[in-house]
Amino acid sequence: MDRYLVISADTHAGPPSEAYRDYVDPQYREAFDKDQESALALRSLILESATEEQTKFREEWEAETGDGGQLASHDSTARLAELDKEGVAGEVIFPDADVLGGGASAPFSAGLQSSGELDGELVMTGARAHNRWLAELCSHSPERRCGVATIPILHDVPGAVAEMERVAASGLRAMMIPTLWGDKPAYHDPVYEPVWSAAEDLELVVNVHSGGASKDILPGPGMVPIYATEAWWWAARPLWVMVWAGVFDRHPKLRFALTEDGAWWLPDILERMDEKWVGGHNTRKFGSLFRQATERKPSEYLGTNVFLGASTPTRHEIATRQRVGVDTLLWGNDFPHPEGTWPHTRDSIRQVFHDVEPDETARMLGATAAEVYRFDKDKLADTVERIGPTRQEVHS
Amino acid sequence: MDRYLVISADTHAGPPSEAYRDYVDPQYREAFDKDQESALALRSLILESATEEQTKFREEWEAETGDGGQLASHDSTARLAELDKEGVAGEVIFPDADVLGGGASAPFSAGLQSSGELDGELVMTGARAHNRWLAELCSHSPERRCGVATIPILHDVPGAVAEMERVAASGLRAMMIPTLWGDKPAYHDPVYEPVWSAAEDLELVVNVHSGGASKDILPGPGMVPIYATEAWWWAARPLWVMVWAGVFDRHPKLRFALTEDGAWWLPDILERMDEKWVGGHNTRKFGSLFRQATERKPSEYLGTNVFLGASTPTRHEIATRQRVGVDTLLWGNDFPHPEGTWPHTRDSIRQVFHDVEPDETARMLGATAAEVYRFDKDKLADTVERIGPTRQEVHS
Repeated sequence: MDRYLVISADTHAGPPSEAYRDYVDPQYREAFDKDQESALALRSLILESATEEQTKFREEWEAETGDGGQLASHDSTARLAELDKEGVAGEVIFPDADVLGGGASAPFSAGLQSSGELDGELVMTGARAHNRWLAELCSHSPERRCGVATIPILHDVPGAVAEMERVAASGLRAMMIPTLWGDKPAYHDPVYEPVWSAAEDLELVVNVHSGGASKDILPGPGMVPIYATEAWWWAARPLWVMVWAGVFDRHPKLRFALTEDGAWWLPDILERMDEKWVGGHNTRKFGSLFRQATERKPSEYLGTNVFLGASTPTRHEIATRQRVGVDTLLWGNDFPHPEGTWPHTRDSIRQVFHDVEPDETARMLGATAAEVYRFDKDKLADTVERIGPTRQEVHS
Repeated sequence: MDRYLVISADTHAGPPSEAYRDYVDPQYREAFDKDQESALALRSLILESATEEQTKFREEWEAETGDGGQLASHDSTARLAELDKEGVAGEVIFPDADVLGGGASAPFSAGLQSSGELDGELVMTGARAHNRWLAELCSHSPERRCGVATIPILHDVPGAVAEMERVAASGLRAMMIPTLWGDKPAYHDPVYEPVWSAAEDLELVVNVHSGGASKDILPGPGMVPIYATEAWWWAARPLWVMVWAGVFDRHPKLRFALTEDGAWWLPDILERMDEKWVGGHNTRKFGSLFRQATERKPSEYLGTNVFLGASTPTRHEIATRQRVGVDTLLWGNDFPHPEGTWPHTRDSIRQVFHDVEPDETARMLGATAAEVYRFDKDKLADTVERIGPTRQEVHS
C-alpha cells in the first residue's frame, strides 16, 4: 500500500461540560451542578487572568482553526472531517479536550486530573458519566475510534473492576488510570491485582497520561515552570513501579501505555534499571534483589507489555527507537490540543519522519497502535486509501 | 605539575553512633539514648535479615579493606592513610559513613535521611552534634578537608541560619540541606530567602546528597528496586525548583551542588528546561512565563552556580561534559561506602579518564572542586607532589 495507516495514539474528546449532566447518575446531579459552578468560576478566573500575550495566542489559534477545536471535541462529523484533513485514520481517545480553558473536562476531575486525593465516590461518578458519553461518540465510527475509559482505581478496587466490565461491554478497548496515588497505595501494591487481572481478561489496554502534578509545589515563584519540568516524571513513575513489582510477570498479557509524556527519558531510565538488574559493583550491597524482582530484564517489557504514546515526537525522540525498540513507540497528534500538531499534522509527519525507513515509519505511525489497541486494519483500508499520507509525501 | 590534584567531592565521615552522645546538647541526651536504642534495634534487624549473599559480600568487603572502613570513618590518621593510598589530596565530607549497617549515622536522622517529616527540634539537635564532631575532624587536617555541615532548614529558618553562622565560624565551608520537604514548603518558597542570603554571605556551598526516598512507596513487591530507580529524582528535584524560582538570580554568589546523584540525567533535563525558556509551539499557551522566571537560560547556571558532584562517574557520565560544560562536573570516590571506588580509586580514575584531555581531567578531578569548595591549592601542593596520580599513570 502506498499510503500510511496513521493512528493517533493520543487525541482528546469531551462535550461542553454542562452536557455531561445527562450522563451523570440521577442521584449525583445536584453534586454535579455544584461541581459545575466551581468549574465555571475557575474557568472565568483563567480567562480573566490571561495575559495579553495569552489572549493573543488564543485569538490566533481560534482564527487559524475556526473555533479552536471546540466543535470537533465532541461532534462526530466535525471530528472526522478534521482528522481526514490530518491524514489520521484512527484515534485513541483520552478525556479532557478542554482547549485553552474552553471547557470540555470530565466531571468531578475524573479526567487527566484524577488522583488519589479526590473523593472516590464522586470521581467514579464523573468517570461513569464520561465513559458513557465516550462510548456513544465511539459508536458513531467504531472502526476509527478506540475510546479510553477513565477508571479511578485508587479508592475502590471492586468498583473499578465493575466499571471496567461495563466499559468493555460498551465497546471501549482501553482505560486510563490516575498517575498520582496521593495517600493511596502505589501501583506495586497487591491490592490492585484484581484490576490487572481484569484488564488482561477484558483486553483493556491500561494507560497513564501526563497532566497531573504533585500538590507539594504550592503557589509561589516559578510554580508553573516547575510543574512543566516535572510533569513527565509523575506520569512516568507508574512504569518502574509496575515493572519492579512484577506486574507484567504475573500478567503477561497486560498492555500498558504511557501517553503524551515525551520519549527522551525512556532509554536512560530503562538502561539504569537494566544495569541494576544485571548487577555490578554499585548494587552489590543489595544482593540479587533486582534480579529477583522481575523475570525479564526491565527493557525487555518494552514493545511487548509497555508502549509509549509519544505524542508529537521530535526527531530526537523518534531516534530513541534505536535504544528502546521501534515497536515501543506510538505516534500521536494530541488533537485538538494547541500544543499538538493539528492542523499541521501532515507537515509535521513529513518533518519528523522524512528520513526514517518506510517500514519503521509505518510501525510508529500506526501499525503498532493498530495491533495494541485492536483496530481492524481491514475495516480502515478504505479510509487509508482515501486520506492516508503517501510515502512520497512523507519522504520527500 | 606532573601530578593531578585530586579532590573527592563526595566522601562520608562519622564516629560510631554512640560517640555522638558527648556532642549532643545535655538537655537532649535522654532523647539521644532513646534514639540510639531504636537505631541499634534497626541495625540488628538489618544484620540478622541479611541474605547469605549479602553476608558474603560484607565478609569479602571487610577482608579486602581491613575493617570495611570503620576506623577511617572517624579516625583522622587512618583516614589520611587511606586517602593517601587512593591518591586523593582533598575531600568534601558528608555525614553517614555508615558502612553496611555498621553504625556511623548522624543522630536523630540528621544526615542523609533528614527530611521535612522529622521532628524539627530533634533533627536540629542531631545536626548540631554532627556538625561539632565534623568541625573537630576537619581541624586535624584543615587544608585537606572541607566539612559539609548538615542543616535542617525546613522546620525553623531562623534556627537554621543561626546554625549556619555557627558552623561557618567553626571552619566548615559547605552545608547540606534535606532533599525531601515532605509537608513543608518546597525550595521555591520565599520563606527560605534568609537561608540563601546567609549561604551567600557566609560563602557556604549549599549541597543536596542522594539517599532520601519518598515515603509513598510502602513496603511491598519491588520496594527496594523502586527506591533505587527513583532515588536520583528526589535528590535532583531541588535543582529545577530553585532555578525556576529565580533563587540564583536573587543570589548570584550562591553555589549549589548535587552530590552522588549520577550525571546521566542532567543534560536532558536542562535541555528540556532551556527549550521551555526559549519558547516554542509546545509552550505557547503559557505565554512567556518561563522566560520571566529566570534571567538566564537554565543551563547557564551550570558551572557558575550549579555543580554536580558526580561520584564514581562512568565514562558515559564523564562524556556529558560536552553537553553540560566541563566545569559543572566534580569527581568523587564516595569513600568509604562500598558502592564507591575505594580501595581501587587509582585504577578507577585511569579507566574513566584515560583518554580525556589532561586539562579537562585536571578540572574534573580537582581543580573545579578546589575553587568551589575553597581549598587552598598552595597548601595542598606538597601532598599532591607526594601522592597525586601522575599524568602517565592516568593516561596510559
